Amino acid sequence: MSPTPDLETAVAAVAARAREAAHVLAVASRATKDRALGAMADALVAATPRILAANAEDVAAARAQGTAEAIIDRLRLDEGRVAGMAEGLREVAALPDPVGEVLRGSTLANGLELRQLRVPFGVVGMIYEARPNVTADAAGICLKSGNAALLRGSSSASRSNEAIVTALRDAATVAGLPADVVQLVPGEGHDAAKVLMRARGLVDVLIPRGGAGLIRSVVEESTVPVIETGVGNCHVYVDAEADADMALDIVLNSKTHRVSVCNAAESLLVHEDIAATFLPRVVEALQQAGVTVHGDPAFTAHDGVVAATEDDYDREYLSLDISAAVVPSLEAAVDHIRRHSSGHTEAIVTESLESARRFTAAVDSAAVMVNASTRFTDGGELGFGAEIGISTQKLHARGPMGLPEMTSTKYVVTGHGHTR
Amino acid sequence: MSPTPDLETAVAAVAARAREAAHVLAVASRATKDRALGAMADALVAATPRILAANAEDVAAARAQGTAEAIIDRLRLDEGRVAGMAEGLREVAALPDPVGEVLRGSTLANGLELRQLRVPFGVVGMIYEARPNVTADAAGICLKSGNAALLRGSSSASRSNEAIVTALRDAATVAGLPADVVQLVPGEGHDAAKVLMRARGLVDVLIPRGGAGLIRSVVEESTVPVIETGVGNCHVYVDAEADADMALDIVLNSKTHRVSVCNAAESLLVHEDIAATFLPRVVEALQQAGVTVHGDPAFTAHDGVVAATEDDYDREYLSLDISAAVVPSLEAAVDHIRRHSSGHTEAIVTESLESARRFTAAVDSAAVMVNASTRFTDGGELGFGAEIGISTQKLHARGPMGLPEMTSTKYVVTGHGHTR
Repeated sequence: MSPTPDLETAVAAVAARAREAAHVLAVASRATKDRALGAMADALVAATPRILAANAEDVAAARAQGTAEAIIDRLRLDEGRVAGMAEGLREVAALPDPVGEVLRGSTLANGLELRQLRVPFGVVGMIYEARPNVTADAAGICLKSGNAALLRGSSSASRSNEAIVTALRDAATVAGLPADVVQLVPGEGHDAAKVLMRARGLVDVLIPRGGAGLIRSVVEESTVPVIETGVGNCHVYVDAEADADMALDIVLNSKTHRVSVCNAAESLLVHEDIAATFLPRVVEALQQAGVTVHGDPAFTAHDGVVAATEDDYDREYLSLDISAAVVPSLEAAVDHIRRHSSGHTEAIVTESLESARRFTAAVDSAAVMVNASTRFTDGGELGFGAEIGISTQKLHARGPMGLPEMTSTKYVVTGHGHTR
Repeated sequence: MSPTPDLETAVAAVAARAREAAHVLAVASRATKDRALGAMADALVAATPRILAANAEDVAAARAQGTAEAIIDRLRLDEGRVAGMAEGLREVAALPDPVGEVLRGSTLANGLELRQLRVPFGVVGMIYEARPNVTADAAGICLKSGNAALLRGSSSASRSNEAIVTALRDAATVAGLPADVVQLVPGEGHDAAKVLMRARGLVDVLIPRGGAGLIRSVVEESTVPVIETGVGNCHVYVDAEADADMALDIVLNSKTHRVSVCNAAESLLVHEDIAATFLPRVVEALQQAGVTVHGDPAFTAHDGVVAATEDDYDREYLSLDISAAVVPSLEAAVDHIRRHSSGHTEAIVTESLESARRFTAAVDSAAVMVNASTRFTDGGELGFGAEIGISTQKLHARGPMGLPEMTSTKYVVTGHGHTR
């Protein structure tokens, strides 16, 4: 089914208002933007009862539809989660303003003064799934980076999102900014998202946040430039020259610290020279932590290891499962990663400088860890502050996307009558 | 008509070879890459007779098909143009290697060492029109930035491109690099380009270079991330407080220095306060230079000015034509530019610091000139060296795209057993 012309008109109208708001926001001072973020945080706290009431309706409707409890948990808000959203907005206010930063500057031989400045994208569209806290996070990051936000959350969270956005919009006006710096995209279900994906010229960038299916469909269907985020089939490679204790810690932490996130490890590769001593230990430790190991024949020789299919090596489990294989060399590990990785994060555990050098040079992922858990690929952990997602594409931004990644650039060239 | 499965297989095979070559190229030293570029330059010069013979066949075939003389002129090579291609490769060799540049680095509180490095994209696809010199330019810029190039030129230049690429591939192997660092995409006409556009996962980035029609079709149809280049509906705004002589120079230079390029001015806006004295002068000067002025009523009051349609203000003439209008304010000029510009380059001529500030802040284009010709938006003029095009999109690169813009980044994070 194609979206109706009415919906296209409605989305175009919303996008046009976002563009107008973006013009105002692009030249707003940091002080104004920070004041708006503070007002938004206060407004969320003040609106907590209304937000929780709306959320309760969403949860009841989801439950009536037989939605899985794990998804309902992501949908559910409580006082603490609303307070967390407000706190997130205050943290964004405390971060430096990326707009106006001079990235490159020089005076040319002919006297022309060249400056390359960070400027906002303009209108940023976000398409995301169940968690309503993304609504506030995205609005805050967009506002601070000078972008008007067009938000399309999941229909299951529509009442919660509506209550949150109403509070944010009111607060924006208190700070002297247009309410339209943040808007929800109208319409039901996937149709609204589809219209957003075809709104080239109206929307400058589209950022999908959610499962692999959502992201694939946005990437395939969108004519608006997309920043792909988040699918992580992350590998830990235990080199021949690894410290076995350290390797054990890193494998366990990467896999089990939090299983439902994109920077969790999904696959373990072990050099054959260390396999005889390391495999029994790592299999036992993983199993004790409740992890099912899907292994190659070297691994299935150990009790409780399930035989892996080729498909297992491509999976982002997001659960207490890990695929595992023994490799004859570092190069074989790199080859395996090239074939199966989603390009998010890979780690090597090694005491060899040469192995670390070869691995970090040859592995082409957003982040490569040496003797550290894959879980460190995170804007907060790496010190970038708030993040809107982890880009797994090579264009524009790669890895955690903070405020600077939410901007474009502009050259300003000043002369005094220069001609060629 | 859809591309045949055979063609899809052929393009996939070429892309797979490019990927293998890209793995080698990604870790090649600057010395190796520069040696290859030097060998390529020598090879082009040595192959001049073969290249010119192939080109003569292309030109004869184009002429037999009744191709316009302007297009044949772009297709035609001579000894000087081949030498120019070779010289271009040597200039690229002399530029710094962007790969490995550290963009961000710090040691985190927990001791993790963070580095953000420039890395190649991997496989870059180029789709371009008649000019065969783009073949050598693109191959050189891709090679220096560590990217394997998949080139799809126009069918009318196929013999010339074949001869050029043969010389380049042979030279690459002399320097110890795989021949497949540069390849032509097989197949006839638009089908091959179409397959390239759908080769997501095989090709990392696609860069179309050519007319507005080509670029639009690539942007619409491609699932591979695209960097949009080149369409320029550039404006010169003459402010109330402009120096009239300077304004005259800048308007004439922007419009007439070279009419067929994307950074030529296509539209003139004049503040009403200066119109009475400036219009007669600028109309006369443009007309003396052979330019047809398509103006609003204020302009058509002058002899020889043609009445502009709304459509004229959207046109990239690439000819001795300019659209023109009088505006009541700087803000009205900015509004006009927002409605009609392609986001390439706009210029203001003014003696007022405040006007310059408002214009540069409010105009959202890749480059904004103050008292300088629009013709300066050029990688060579701005000191960036070789450029592969001028990006008019906001994602990844905006403005002249040199070597740094042909790279992605990678985070390398080094710990000593760090876990969360």
